[in-house]
Amino acid sequence: MRLPQFADIQNAHSRISPFIHRTPVLKSMQLNELFNCELYFKCENFQKVGAFKFRGATNAVLLLSSEEKLRGVVTHSSGNHAAALALAARMNGIKANIVMPENAPAVKKIAVAGYGAEITFCKPTLQAREDTTCRIIENTGATLIHPYDNFNVICGQGTASLELLQEKEDLDIVIAPVGGGGLLSGTSTYVKGMNLNIQVFGAEPLNANDAYISFNSGILTKSDNPVTCADGLLTSLSDLTFSVIRKNVDKILTAQEDSIIECMLLVWERMKIIIEPSSATVLAVVKENPGLFTGKKIGLIISGGNVDFRKLPF
Amino acid sequence: MRLPQFADIQNAHSRISPFIHRTPVLKSMQLNELFNCELYFKCENFQKVGAFKFRGATNAVLLLSSEEKLRGVVTHSSGNHAAALALAARMNGIKANIVMPENAPAVKKIAVAGYGAEITFCKPTLQAREDTTCRIIENTGATLIHPYDNFNVICGQGTASLELLQEKEDLDIVIAPVGGGGLLSGTSTYVKGMNLNIQVFGAEPLNANDAYISFNSGILTKSDNPVTCADGLLTSLSDLTFSVIRKNVDKILTAQEDSIIECMLLVWERMKIIIEPSSATVLAVVKENPGLFTGKKIGLIISGGNVDFRKLPF
Repeated sequence: MRLPQFADIQNAHSRISPFIHRTPVLKSMQLNELFNCELYFKCENFQKVGAFKFRGATNAVLLLSSEEKLRGVVTHSSGNHAAALALAARMNGIKANIVMPENAPAVKKIAVAGYGAEITFCKPTLQAREDTTCRIIENTGATLIHPYDNFNVICGQGTASLELLQEKEDLDIVIAPVGGGGLLSGTSTYVKGMNLNIQVFGAEPLNANDAYISFNSGILTKSDNPVTCADGLLTSLSDLTFSVIRKNVDKILTAQEDSIIECMLLVWERMKIIIEPSSATVLAVVKENPGLFTGKKIGLIISGGNVDFRKLPF
Repeated sequence: MRLPQFADIQNAHSRISPFIHRTPVLKSMQLNELFNCELYFKCENFQKVGAFKFRGATNAVLLLSSEEKLRGVVTHSSGNHAAALALAARMNGIKANIVMPENAPAVKKIAVAGYGAEITFCKPTLQAREDTTCRIIENTGATLIHPYDNFNVICGQGTASLELLQEKEDLDIVIAPVGGGGLLSGTSTYVKGMNLNIQVFGAEPLNANDAYISFNSGILTKSDNPVTCADGLLTSLSDLTFSVIRKNVDKILTAQEDSIIECMLLVWERMKIIIEPSSATVLAVVKENPGLFTGKKIGLIISGGNVDFRKLPF
């Protein structure tokens, strides 16, 4: 299995830079005082479509051959990757077909449709999603762009850390949330490639701790219908992301639901920026493990800011 | 009556710069497309205490004599000015006493106490507030720092526009919300001093339209217990702010409640920043009056981001 390398992420950044936002790195004196450390928030909630997913989707789309571009792309997702692939495809004149469960929230259907993708609805089971996706690929020859089990997607996601380290290179630790592991794979590959002395941690909800279990047991383990407010982190690692994470990540830390919600609210209140629960997980592990972080300079990858304001967890 | 002048605001900016945040000017392609104009958001929601009020309070505190500083400051407010004065006083080693109605939200009491001010509670009537404030002044010799009916406070508030025009000087229009009129007075004085060709508009909730009525009738008129979600704009103009606004402002526009709420949600969703309802009023008047704004370059003063997340209007 070929794993992404440092240079792949550098190349991805050159490739996608004209298409993405360079998001800010923000600080908060109040939060630094509260947690007794220096926090540097890489704010992908300000990325296009409101999430880092646009980086990976754009890199994958730009690397299609001319023939593949003509046949279009497909994915099954109801989350940020769906919107990201839809917009990345549209910006490059490529057709996108998004397979979504028929019970997906209206707000997500509208977002994906608004970016010009065709939506194919299916029953809300994994089997139905995969069958529907296969049928589309057979009928159209479209290329599947998986949300995280994809080399080029991982390289795109790693570019957030490249920009973070360009702005603040002397970090002690970088923390990224981990669901399927695409962001953590790209993050850890880039950070360790730059400086082996920077520790890289994954942050995962305790209620969806498959990466924690897999990492510590050495055996890839899947979550079974996890329930967490961090709805971007429900997925489990793939062979590819597990391999990268075992090689490059120092530690997976878990966070309890009430910590995640408390930290989401803290960021909203003190920093006046909107982050989604999945993003709050990185701050929640700092809160739950003060011994690991006191006095340290810590980069936090804030993964996104897409929230249903009518269903807040607080 | 001596009115603030352009140079007063320049001097205020030099005076308060070491103490305040220089807040960013943000843009949103999505909102520009939606409203067919170029919007430049001066984000005072990122100011210390989460509101522009810190500028005026800081300027007023810095201009106290040594003797006045020893005797401390006092104000009656349960909102952003209370927190702003508390912090400005603390940063300068000055005692602050804040008179608050006993039924003020717990979150506001905690905020003000957290900035180190002494709180004196009173019955929730205007008479009780004023009596209590007078008693404190008699007992302590503290200086009253009124939230808007104060020359130095107005000069401080105008400094947000100074920074806005430093970043984007070729604006056609600048819009600020209007409650008591301190921000609009400072804004209009600075903007017209820089460039008479830039129009300055005030944005006011239709449900609290005393400034609209006063401006158009030429007779200072007070609101009578207005009800609006824009809880920072409940107050009425004073003689001082009315005089400045009549001289420098081109138009007062009003916004309906549903427009204010819709525009607040739009900014949260599209820009991923937290603004309070009072701030959304400036965008709501753009939405309600497309004929005035199409194709124009518009500076919007986003006044603050202090929201009770458990009592959202949507």
